[in-house]
Amino acid sequence: MTVNEFAFSQEVYTSRRKSLMEKVPGSQILLIGNNYSSMNYRDNHYPFIQDSNFLYYVGMDIPGLSVIIDSNTGITTLYGNDIDIDMIIWTGNQPSLKQLGERSGISQIKTKSSLKSDIKAGIKYLPTYRSEHELQYQDLLNGSTIEPSLDLILAIIEQRNIKSEAELIQLNKAVEITSRLQTYLMRNAKDGMKEYQLVGVAKAFLSDHNCSFSFPPICTINGQTLHNHYHGNTMKNGDMLLMDCGARLNNGYSGDMTRTFPVSGKFTTRQSDLYSIVNNAHNNAVEMSNPGTYYRDVHLGAAKTIVEGLIQLGWMKGDPDEAVSTGAHTLFFQHGLGHMMGLDVHDMENLGEVYVGYDSTISKSTEFGLKSLRLGRQLKEKNVITIEPGIYVIPELIDKFQSEGKFKNFINYSVVNENRDAGGIRIENDYVIRSNGVVALGNPDGTSVEEVESIMS
Amino acid sequence: MTVNEFAFSQEVYTSRRKSLMEKVPGSQILLIGNNYSSMNYRDNHYPFIQDSNFLYYVGMDIPGLSVIIDSNTGITTLYGNDIDIDMIIWTGNQPSLKQLGERSGISQIKTKSSLKSDIKAGIKYLPTYRSEHELQYQDLLNGSTIEPSLDLILAIIEQRNIKSEAELIQLNKAVEITSRLQTYLMRNAKDGMKEYQLVGVAKAFLSDHNCSFSFPPICTINGQTLHNHYHGNTMKNGDMLLMDCGARLNNGYSGDMTRTFPVSGKFTTRQSDLYSIVNNAHNNAVEMSNPGTYYRDVHLGAAKTIVEGLIQLGWMKGDPDEAVSTGAHTLFFQHGLGHMMGLDVHDMENLGEVYVGYDSTISKSTEFGLKSLRLGRQLKEKNVITIEPGIYVIPELIDKFQSEGKFKNFINYSVVNENRDAGGIRIENDYVIRSNGVVALGNPDGTSVEEVESIMS
Repeated sequence: MTVNEFAFSQEVYTSRRKSLMEKVPGSQILLIGNNYSSMNYRDNHYPFIQDSNFLYYVGMDIPGLSVIIDSNTGITTLYGNDIDIDMIIWTGNQPSLKQLGERSGISQIKTKSSLKSDIKAGIKYLPTYRSEHELQYQDLLNGSTIEPSLDLILAIIEQRNIKSEAELIQLNKAVEITSRLQTYLMRNAKDGMKEYQLVGVAKAFLSDHNCSFSFPPICTINGQTLHNHYHGNTMKNGDMLLMDCGARLNNGYSGDMTRTFPVSGKFTTRQSDLYSIVNNAHNNAVEMSNPGTYYRDVHLGAAKTIVEGLIQLGWMKGDPDEAVSTGAHTLFFQHGLGHMMGLDVHDMENLGEVYVGYDSTISKSTEFGLKSLRLGRQLKEKNVITIEPGIYVIPELIDKFQSEGKFKNFINYSVVNENRDAGGIRIENDYVIRSNGVVALGNPDGTSVEEVESIMS
Repeated sequence: MTVNEFAFSQEVYTSRRKSLMEKVPGSQILLIGNNYSSMNYRDNHYPFIQDSNFLYYVGMDIPGLSVIIDSNTGITTLYGNDIDIDMIIWTGNQPSLKQLGERSGISQIKTKSSLKSDIKAGIKYLPTYRSEHELQYQDLLNGSTIEPSLDLILAIIEQRNIKSEAELIQLNKAVEITSRLQTYLMRNAKDGMKEYQLVGVAKAFLSDHNCSFSFPPICTINGQTLHNHYHGNTMKNGDMLLMDCGARLNNGYSGDMTRTFPVSGKFTTRQSDLYSIVNNAHNNAVEMSNPGTYYRDVHLGAAKTIVEGLIQLGWMKGDPDEAVSTGAHTLFFQHGLGHMMGLDVHDMENLGEVYVGYDSTISKSTEFGLKSLRLGRQLKEKNVITIEPGIYVIPELIDKFQSEGKFKNFINYSVVNENRDAGGIRIENDYVIRSNGVVALGNPDGTSVEEVESIMS
């Protein structure tokens, strides 16, 4: 086959769809696969990325397909167009829809043009995240308001949040490649290199393993800028480099890992002090992550470890629990501790982040800090999550909080202001929840100061 | 600045817009810049690629912007939203729209929300090539039919088809990096390597030069499959590898070059025979490409060289001119000889291929072969073009033509059928048209059999 192979056997896809039909009975369920996305003209495409729900239930990594899963009849119908003889001259022989259907356990195949007329009132469908979906929905739904079905969304999340052992093998593989990549990058970074050159080293490593990036990498000497996709700086001895990236296997399963390391191979005292706090927060969060625990509590536990560390350094003061409950830690730890991971690096964010990470027992906070926590709900066995605490010294935020008179009882602003150039640190690994706690995926190398310096020596 | 720099000075953008206003008087001209494109959920973006017309007239390589160029008043207005203080915490300091406007010679700046009300009836705009544009037009034009303005399209093409010396410096740079990349790849390819691994080598090389691919690369041991983006094969001694790729500079200017070389470093006799024909066709096309010459005639000239070579080999027979006029060469040379190149690798294909490559004096043929020729018009000084002849042995096409009884007087089907596994060969360089003929961009290494084998030795 000249297309990416299916990740699993026919039985897996059939059984996933059967399970979905049982959760959403008496309905037509529409899953629209993705099309090519154009860059600067129609025929110049970005690399094709399939919708993750389509991959999960149908497995076909090819543009231009849709399915209706009918839980009234139990029948799944694949809609698409086979390529014709003229196209074969240009593209070579491609598997037919019939062959693809066989690999996915789908025997009913129709042309793309029959999709619209097969749609009945009340068909259930998913939210859009590409303009192409909105245009398709406009057409398919005859211009009526687009209202995705919450029960379908929740059913899919319930299913996909629990990973099968076969999925865990794939995720472990993606994370293992990511782990080896991070170590490789730590050994290849050096004084005078541009950030984009290190990104290039990562691209070659990933291609060598037939992978791509699972998201645009963050590779920066300015780790305190959280959403930083600029790669034009030169790294110098004395800088720390923050690398947040992940391998995406050809079948979609993704890793996500962050390392922060000194370009010179040796942390300075200040870097080492701050780094160790983040590493402790990571380790404590790992300890706390057990089935039945609310991940919001793990997040707040990590925040407390950070506060305790910063009190020891003299950057903060007062009672750590009180500091965390008032939100004083958010001067340094502004984002959430982690998220679900799977076929999407933020798993199922296409269905709505709040449905994936929260449920009827816990709703998302609107407070600064907690509002950026993607995952708050109780952990369950076979959830796959990231744990990624950090400390970031953001001058603009120091000025904002100080001028607003915020957290005066917990922050030693004079000390903090002496360290406005301290930068940003994050340490991230990926874990599966097991009955007795979390297990790291991908056999990552150690993250202590000593271990990082040893890797780089 | 933490965004890509403008390619040119303020004066260049101002003068380009002035020239456009003179060509399209008495009008509002709308140019919509691109937004981010989502991969598998809204916030997981493909790398941002700006619209090339927006880059050409405005220069800003940032999502979410639009301009109205008003040739009634001579005023250009930039529409967009500055980031607020909350966002600065996440993204770091970014240049303001005012600062960006200054770099582009635009002093009138308005928020995105005021664009719609500033649009007057009869505003001129360009064709869409992304779904996001269609949704924007639906909104901006209040649901009236989307009818791009042909006079605006033609005015832009007239302007952009003639490259300035400053643009030629950028294009030469993009092609020089592409040339060095091709040589580097020829030296790195080896028996047992996967195609995707060689693509990885290319990615690292491009990142090292702060470039990306100008289009999804073709890297294949099955060069006869023209649109081949599958990279899962293993290259072996005895195979030829066809690599068609280009560097895109950060400012958009793009290269496009093809090399076909033996994985072992030595062509077999059959490979060498066919390769030499393609190389002759390339050289003759270079000789023929002069100002005032119709590129369709250059295309047909290349076809004739190919026929003459294949007659010598015994694959074809009869009179070469007659063979070309009946289209018999299209069994082996199915695509067009080349296209315009600039900010887009197929320059301005977002405006309509037929308007870029054809004009009132020549229209595009619908015949097999010629219908794939993107450029037919008379060459002019400072056009930048590709020349890329090829020979492809496509078993499906041989069977089709033979079963239809086609070209029996010109094709020795028995000989051809003995060589169904001969594969595909293309040789492509990029050229600027000068008063006395073409000049190769980017100082490419030689492409003869001897030169290729010498590079690889």
